Parts: sequence; C-alpha cells; structure tokens
Amino acid sequence: MVEYIIKTHENFTEKIGELVCMLEHSREVTLHEVSKLEQRELDFLPDDHSNSIGSLLLHMASIEFVHQVISFEKRDLTKDEYVKWGTALEMGDQARKVIRNHPVDYYLDELSKVRESTLTSLKSKNDSWLFEESKWGNGVAYNNYYLWFHVMEDEINHRGQIRTIKRLLRERRGS
Amino acid sequence: MVEYIIKTHENFTEKIGELVCMLEHSREVTLHEVSKLEQRELDFLPDDHSNSIGSLLLHMASIEFVHQVISFEKRDLTKDEYVKWGTALEMGDQARKVIRNHPVDYYLDELSKVRESTLTSLKSKNDSWLFEESKWGNGVAYNNYYLWFHVMEDEINHRGQIRTIKRLLRERRGS
Repeated sequence: MVEYIIKTHENFTEKIGELVCMLEHSREVTLHEVSKLEQRELDFLPDDHSNSIGSLLLHMASIEFVHQVISFEKRDLTKDEYVKWGTALEMGDQARKVIRNHPVDYYLDELSKVRESTLTSLKSKNDSWLFEESKWGNGVAYNNYYLWFHVMEDEINHRGQIRTIKRLLRERRGS
Repeated sequence: MVEYIIKTHENFTEKIGELVCMLEHSREVTLHEVSKLEQRELDFLPDDHSNSIGSLLLHMASIEFVHQVISFEKRDLTKDEYVKWGTALEMGDQARKVIRNHPVDYYLDELSKVRESTLTSLKSKNDSWLFEESKWGNGVAYNNYYLWFHVMEDEINHRGQIRTIKRLLRERRGS
C-alpha cells in the first residue's frame, strides 16, 4: 500500500466505499503475507490438528462467497455450492486431506474471483442497504454492514494464524 | 453480543460511532476468547519463540495506547510511556520474561482502561477528523480513520494467534 488512508471510492456509495477500502486493505496485507510461498509451505501442517496456509486461504474465499449469498441473494448455499465450498468452510480432517498440492496462484485466483464478484455486487448497493436487517434462524438480528465487517474480521483472524505457521516454518528450517 | 448489527451510537458522530461499534464488537469477541483463562494458560508458551496469550493481550492494549498518542496528541511516546509500554509493544524475549504471573483480570483491566480513554477522546472528535491526514517519518501518508482501523486489525490478527495457542493448550491437556 502506498498510503495508509481509509477513504471511499467513486464507484461506491460513501460508506460502502470506506468498507471496501478496509476490505481491500486487509486483503492487500494478506496477499503480502502469502504471495511468495511455495507449495510445500502452503501444504505444511505444524501438527495433526492445525490447518495449512492453503486451507486458510481457501477458507477466506469460502467465507466471502457465503456472505455474498446471504447478503446479496438472501438465501443459503445450494447443494452444488456446498459441494464446491463445504470443505474449505468447515476445515478440519477433510480439508487436511484434500486442500493441498496447489501452487499459490490457485489460492490467489480463487480469492480474486470471489472478491471481484463482491465488488461488482457492492457497486449496485447503496449505504442504506448496509443497515438492512435480517434474522438468523435462532432469531438473532444482523445487518449487511455486520456481515461484511465479519468477512474482514474472519480474514484478519486467519491471517494471524498464517503468521504463526510462517514463523514455525522458518524455525523448522533453522533460518 | 445479542445482535450482529453495525450501527452508530448517539455519543459519537455517525462514522466514528460505526467505527466504535466495530472496535467494540472486535473487543467483545476477544474478551469472550480469554475471560475464563487461568494464569498458567495466559503464561503458556507453545515454544521458545511464541508469545503468551497474556503478552498478546497486553500488546493489544499497548497498540491502542500508541494510536491514541499518535492520533489524539500527534506526538510520539514519552520516555516514561515507553518504559511502561515498550515491552508489550515489541514482544519477543523481554516480553516472555516479564509479562507473566498475572491473573486474567490484570489484562482485562489494562485493556479496559485504555479503551475507556479511547472512547472518551473519540466522543470529542467528529467525522471530518477521521479524514485528517499526516505523514510518517518516511513520507507515507495516513489518516486517523486508518489508524483506528489498524487498531482493530491488529487486535483481530492477534486474536487469531490466541485461538491457535488455546487449541495447543487443549491438545496438550489431551482433552
């Protein structure tokens, strides 16, 4: 990032533009953390119960996709969408088995495709949309502003885990 | 949190209130992660180079304090402030040595005192203050909106690391 400025962008209404700026800043820092990693680093599992960096990246894309479906289409995942994203969403044993053997470009491409779709949809919304409320099945209220705040929160949270895994990788290399 | 809603609060101008809502939501999730931890869990070091949960919590408070000084007072830390916060800011060996042997209330109290001061100061600012720009020593521009976005980002990032440490604690207990 050339400058550390949060501000709106002409393609969006004011507050959506500021939120997009935060989402994009968060993503830029994430990409900076991972863009030079090799496949073996993306697949590395520090222990039997941790997630690989690759899984965490695909999880970020899956969380963003789910929040698109909820906020823009007001529905749950279809069966086909669940087949595609379920493993990355839920992580765990299955993710450790199947999310591997990809170069970093695979993950960057998935993140980028989902993000592009997010930005396209957000361009068609206005600030009052951010405050539209719905309820989860358990009766707890949420608004669209929260949903997209949470996409950012989830990514940053997992980026913290990625940093820990990178430190462990460096230590095991003895560098 | 009873509801997952981002909205402003009457004590703040509109956008500052929304940012405060995000900061407070992030904090609530952090507190939920740690508020029942015992001293030995807060002091636990998974390996020689990691930070304890206690250190990460004090680091969050220190980052917030530094951003108060930069954004509200437009200055660097004084020597005395650095003596108090330097170790938590920088982490590493010194933090591993000295930030320990405290119950969780010690950390919660430090977080709470700093947060209270943040909210008091933010109440006296207005939305245009968010967009006031300054430059770092290296010439890179930032605005106050970014600084407080970053306080949130840093906390969420370290919360991800806290979650990893909690998982390791559970596994070593064999539960």
